[in-house]
Amino acid sequence: MTAAHHEISAMHRAIALSALGLGRTSPNPPVGCVILDPTGRVVGEGHHERKGEPHAEVHALAAAGEHARGGTAVVTLEPCNHHGRTPPCHQALLDAGIARTVIALIDPTSRDEGGAARLRAAGVEVEVGVLADTARLVLGPWLDSLTTGRPHVTWLYRTNPDGNPVTPTASQVRALAAGMDVVVHADGSVVEARPNSHGAFSLPTPQPSRQPAELLAALYDGGTRTVLIATGPSIAARFIHNGLIDRTVAHLDPVGPSHRPSTRTQPLVPTGFVVDTVTREGHGVRVEAHRPTRQNHLPQ
Amino acid sequence: MTAAHHEISAMHRAIALSALGLGRTSPNPPVGCVILDPTGRVVGEGHHERKGEPHAEVHALAAAGEHARGGTAVVTLEPCNHHGRTPPCHQALLDAGIARTVIALIDPTSRDEGGAARLRAAGVEVEVGVLADTARLVLGPWLDSLTTGRPHVTWLYRTNPDGNPVTPTASQVRALAAGMDVVVHADGSVVEARPNSHGAFSLPTPQPSRQPAELLAALYDGGTRTVLIATGPSIAARFIHNGLIDRTVAHLDPVGPSHRPSTRTQPLVPTGFVVDTVTREGHGVRVEAHRPTRQNHLPQ
Ligand SMILES: [Zn+2]
Ligand SMILES: [Zn+2]
Repeated sequence: MTAAHHEISAMHRAIALSALGLGRTSPNPPVGCVILDPTGRVVGEGHHERKGEPHAEVHALAAAGEHARGGTAVVTLEPCNHHGRTPPCHQALLDAGIARTVIALIDPTSRDEGGAARLRAAGVEVEVGVLADTARLVLGPWLDSLTTGRPHVTWLYRTNPDGNPVTPTASQVRALAAGMDVVVHADGSVVEARPNSHGAFSLPTPQPSRQPAELLAALYDGGTRTVLIATGPSIAARFIHNGLIDRTVAHLDPVGPSHRPSTRTQPLVPTGFVVDTVTREGHGVRVEAHRPTRQNHLPQ
Repeated sequence: MTAAHHEISAMHRAIALSALGLGRTSPNPPVGCVILDPTGRVVGEGHHERKGEPHAEVHALAAAGEHARGGTAVVTLEPCNHHGRTPPCHQALLDAGIARTVIALIDPTSRDEGGAARLRAAGVEVEVGVLADTARLVLGPWLDSLTTGRPHVTWLYRTNPDGNPVTPTASQVRALAAGMDVVVHADGSVVEARPNSHGAFSLPTPQPSRQPAELLAALYDGGTRTVLIATGPSIAARFIHNGLIDRTVAHLDPVGPSHRPSTRTQPLVPTGFVVDTVTREGHGVRVEAHRPTRQNHLPQ
């Protein structure tokens, strides 16, 4: 049996909801969940909003209440099977009487037997790999960080009409920082993008005078999974040269139709990167690219 | 011989510049061009800014001046070979003494022998297909419209926390309209997104009371190549049901972690569409998807 039409629709919704957790859940993954009743109607939805708070499945089951019994859970990542700050979600799904679970991606951090296997063993029908590529658009950086042992790094930069790099605008930084754990600013400060569970904002820890790889390792150990580099080119170049940039977002200032450029110090897209989007924004252009060497996380 | 490293870098820049023409050049394509001198240094760049104005190559050659002699032209679309409002660009490249031309995509509207073949016949080294997929990120809608005979259509919509469609905000419309020829607004009005070459803004022509296919055919005949549907779901549904939507951009209003949704009338992503990006924006989410059935425009 494969996923039904309304289950795919629910997975799209679960993936969109999962993105609301970006920048807040690390070191946990941003996950979304939708509960369907036995007739296929949406009766609950939720997402993991912040580390230490309930997982997506728990929120969605709470919203669904008794309507979940005999129904289907649609979740972007395999339900957890371990006791952390919250009880394991596969048990919560069983307790709620869920009869079928549709999963986009398997959780590589599952300890022992994973949540999917435990659900199957308990008689729940389990479907894995539904919209896996789409779920990876949100979970990809978190999955990548598990295999590299360092945070996923995005470099934000801006070029003037000559093609030379200049400091990004505050609003360009703000727009990207919303979904990041930590921002390295132009003045070299390393700041958490959002308050952590204790309400604290700034990371008093590592300074970028340190070597980039060392900085990233220290951030990873502290639970950071995504980093935005919003510095000028000199700091960013040290990350690039060490192969530590995974994604770039370039904003080009407006350029006239017949422009005589000066010598440029920085190519628009780093060597070997693949461009994902080229969009006009106002009178400028935004170009997004990624390094194509990232690991592929196929479902079981 | 394949494209050198600095030529690929120049093509990235040419593609980014080409995007500055989005929403202004129709029925012409948005094209960008970079000129390298014989040592590989960037000496000129340009883009087609508006229909009736010079093509990208002409702008870039003007900026380069004598530095173009013996150099390389890097251009996102095959140079034109026909006399329109401007002389053919392949001739301008020959007159400037260009020795090599690097092209991303072949122009399917070339009449008779194309510009690439004419350049080759005149002894210019021509490389085709460099960063073709990246160039298609900007030229794709224009290329698609040639084969469908109607404009490329993007549907912008917004959902409230219940998942129900509501009218997009003015700033959501504005951000997307910047790169579009025509916007169909929520009140049913059909408006040119930018002033045309005569400085006029509004299209007095077709009204969406007309059938969607009829409306699009009339717009295409008038030179429109890209349309943004920024209406509520009832007008958009008539386009969807007729298979006339090529791309969707959905903005989800902020949703709490444990939300009890109401019955939804509209799936987040239309059936069969493939999601390209899921990004957090402030406290909401933006989801972009496309219909995967578009034509593939491979280079010769
Ligand atoms: Zn869990
Ligand atoms: Zn031309």
